[in-house]
Amino acid sequence: MSAASSAKRREEDLEVVVFERGPYTSFSACGIPFYVGDWVHGLEELVARSPQEHREAGLDVRMGHEVVAIDLAAREVVVREPRPGGGERREGFDELVYATGAEAVLPPIPGAEALEPVRTLEQGERLKASVADRGDEPAVVVGGGYIGLETAEALVHRGMRVTLVERSEHLFGTVDPDMADEIRGAAEAVGIDVRTGVEVQEVQVGDDGRPRGVRTSDGEIAAGHVVLATGARPSTSLAEEAGLQLGESGALAVGADQRCTGQEGVWSAGDCAESRHRLTGRGVNVQLGTHANKQGRVAGVNLTGGDLRFPGVLGTAISRICHLEIARTGLGEQEAAEAGFDCVVEKVTANTHASYWPERGDITIKLVAERGSGRLIGAQLVGEQTAGKRIDALALAVWNEMSVEDLQWVDLAYAPPVSPTIDPVLVAARATAKLL
Amino acid sequence: MSAASSAKRREEDLEVVVFERGPYTSFSACGIPFYVGDWVHGLEELVARSPQEHREAGLDVRMGHEVVAIDLAAREVVVREPRPGGGERREGFDELVYATGAEAVLPPIPGAEALEPVRTLEQGERLKASVADRGDEPAVVVGGGYIGLETAEALVHRGMRVTLVERSEHLFGTVDPDMADEIRGAAEAVGIDVRTGVEVQEVQVGDDGRPRGVRTSDGEIAAGHVVLATGARPSTSLAEEAGLQLGESGALAVGADQRCTGQEGVWSAGDCAESRHRLTGRGVNVQLGTHANKQGRVAGVNLTGGDLRFPGVLGTAISRICHLEIARTGLGEQEAAEAGFDCVVEKVTANTHASYWPERGDITIKLVAERGSGRLIGAQLVGEQTAGKRIDALALAVWNEMSVEDLQWVDLAYAPPVSPTIDPVLVAARATAKLL
Repeated sequence: MSAASSAKRREEDLEVVVFERGPYTSFSACGIPFYVGDWVHGLEELVARSPQEHREAGLDVRMGHEVVAIDLAAREVVVREPRPGGGERREGFDELVYATGAEAVLPPIPGAEALEPVRTLEQGERLKASVADRGDEPAVVVGGGYIGLETAEALVHRGMRVTLVERSEHLFGTVDPDMADEIRGAAEAVGIDVRTGVEVQEVQVGDDGRPRGVRTSDGEIAAGHVVLATGARPSTSLAEEAGLQLGESGALAVGADQRCTGQEGVWSAGDCAESRHRLTGRGVNVQLGTHANKQGRVAGVNLTGGDLRFPGVLGTAISRICHLEIARTGLGEQEAAEAGFDCVVEKVTANTHASYWPERGDITIKLVAERGSGRLIGAQLVGEQTAGKRIDALALAVWNEMSVEDLQWVDLAYAPPVSPTIDPVLVAARATAKLL
Repeated sequence: MSAASSAKRREEDLEVVVFERGPYTSFSACGIPFYVGDWVHGLEELVARSPQEHREAGLDVRMGHEVVAIDLAAREVVVREPRPGGGERREGFDELVYATGAEAVLPPIPGAEALEPVRTLEQGERLKASVADRGDEPAVVVGGGYIGLETAEALVHRGMRVTLVERSEHLFGTVDPDMADEIRGAAEAVGIDVRTGVEVQEVQVGDDGRPRGVRTSDGEIAAGHVVLATGARPSTSLAEEAGLQLGESGALAVGADQRCTGQEGVWSAGDCAESRHRLTGRGVNVQLGTHANKQGRVAGVNLTGGDLRFPGVLGTAISRICHLEIARTGLGEQEAAEAGFDCVVEKVTANTHASYWPERGDITIKLVAERGSGRLIGAQLVGEQTAGKRIDALALAVWNEMSVEDLQWVDLAYAPPVSPTIDPVLVAARATAKLL
């Protein structure tokens, strides 16, 4: 919708047709766990812009329409219409934006097919309804990434007994294990039963089609609710069938202009598209609304003759999990080593506020800097609520290829209600510079 | 103490003598309003490191010793000792660090001399005691800068009736008037009676030496407490008498190495010293603990043969006033014009969090960008509690001379509990880029 809206804004007379197989446009998938946890009460709050609003902006939005094939040679898509029998028709295009997002990866275990993922608003609504119906039954969440943790926290917030099962030894695989381990304590403190290094081997389903629990490498866990949060992959099947090229990440290969590699007039943006990592130069697939939104804008502007470039990603990410905030930007310690950087790594724990400030908390910042140049190539942090957005300052330092020697002197904001005299970002930079 | 500690850490055998005329070392003057407001209960909480702790680190700390003269030719200071009669003696030095801080500027009006400023912990303690004794009497705070506002809020928090009188038409002169005006509403909402454009002409003092109120250009205001928060100037008198050079800001002229201009072995740091503004190249006096701390470190390292440079300031500042956070970095609209920049200015109001997040609030960001280059040269913001530290991302953009065109694409952290999909910093950069 970002691409469609941008294009329409630039070219008032452009005919923009949007096919959406579901009933919602422009919704926040990121908000679903918070809706399930009932911090957000109404499903409609997660909709940033309804089909009707898009139509008022001049877009021809066709809801319930599923595109089932793309014919690049004929410049047509094949669309299944939402009517009994599901008739198909062809629709021509001059420019095509492929923005199918990502789809859940279900583990290849018996019973998994009986569960539905929680990716769309309708799926979120069904999970919330089942919590309302049978909240006294325990739940198992499979997958200890941020969505799994947010979902587990949401269910605990609804008063449920929750077990979180993660196959690897550490939760939150997107940060280094030493940082992720801080999250485990926070999750346990709110009452989540965390089991790491445990593989789910089967989802046990009753005769009524409902889950009864899971069988794992460490025994059985009875549960009336089983939620899979085992990741998502770019939705590329239609594109592959049409002959569009995939990149090294498995997502659609696109240039910085969001044009599909090797194609004219075919664009892609969002979770289905590949991004360039600014530090490694590699193609990566980072599924985040903030990139999708920007990439959509780039595609929409360029397909109407504009000239924008999406400058790539640093892998910046943040989550608030069980009263802690955890964030990252650039490369972690392990990622940096894998990418061939010779690095020093330092970790500091500091106050989030002046030491005497009543709401002060701890923040731990880990920096990864290139030996020799001193360039900051990665940062991770974990801290009390409101501490996390400090990652943005670090992202800007990485983006600008600053050295930690330079970073330690930057004029960051100080006042007791928001920071200690020397901000933790600077404290961490200084400690890292010392190692160099 | 930062200089002393740095020097001692680098050179274990160095004899470091510290003369302090008061009873405290390393205390947070910034914390005094919060102590008066009783968010911070004990005075000792504001002391980062006591004389005894410094002594344990090997510093020869002489409390209650006032240096009354500096003899640069003889390489000696004249010290008044804390004993009856106040005997004076001379103490030689090889290297001297002049770190006297700043002192209150009292308005030249009758009665002002009967009041004491609130700069030191002892003064803060006396103000808190008078609030405890006579909290039922109304208070007048003179001066609508951040210390005046923090103090007024503190007194309201103690249940007092408070009038804040500011001579100019706008509070908070360190930001542009349109931003400062947001603070007025917040101050009034907590019950502060704000009077701008009103000059205090006399402090009315009773026979008992206590204030009875103030006479202003807009009538009399009765008050049992009158607090002056009319700014501070660098404490340079000793330095001037010794022949040290002042810079254009009225603070001590120093190089980036913190060495006093034209001197060998004489250094200065903190509120008494001048800093270089990175955008204008001008000498400025920014009285903030974060600069003092860094400059002290530079002085301490360099006087022991090291080679550090303080790279200058952007004028970054932040305050939390009556549940709002207000912050700035770089040049404001008026400052940029005065400095000769040809600029465009844009202001946006955005959500601090996802639109559906229960604790979302507003943040208004104003950017100043150079026409032509698009370089961001200043940012100001005002927003709900926890919004303010976004100024750090903007400070890093200014520091790195980024254009707003580039800034709008930076990979900042997104998750619903901490940010909307596109962070307000990026929204503001994009809106400003559009103007260019």
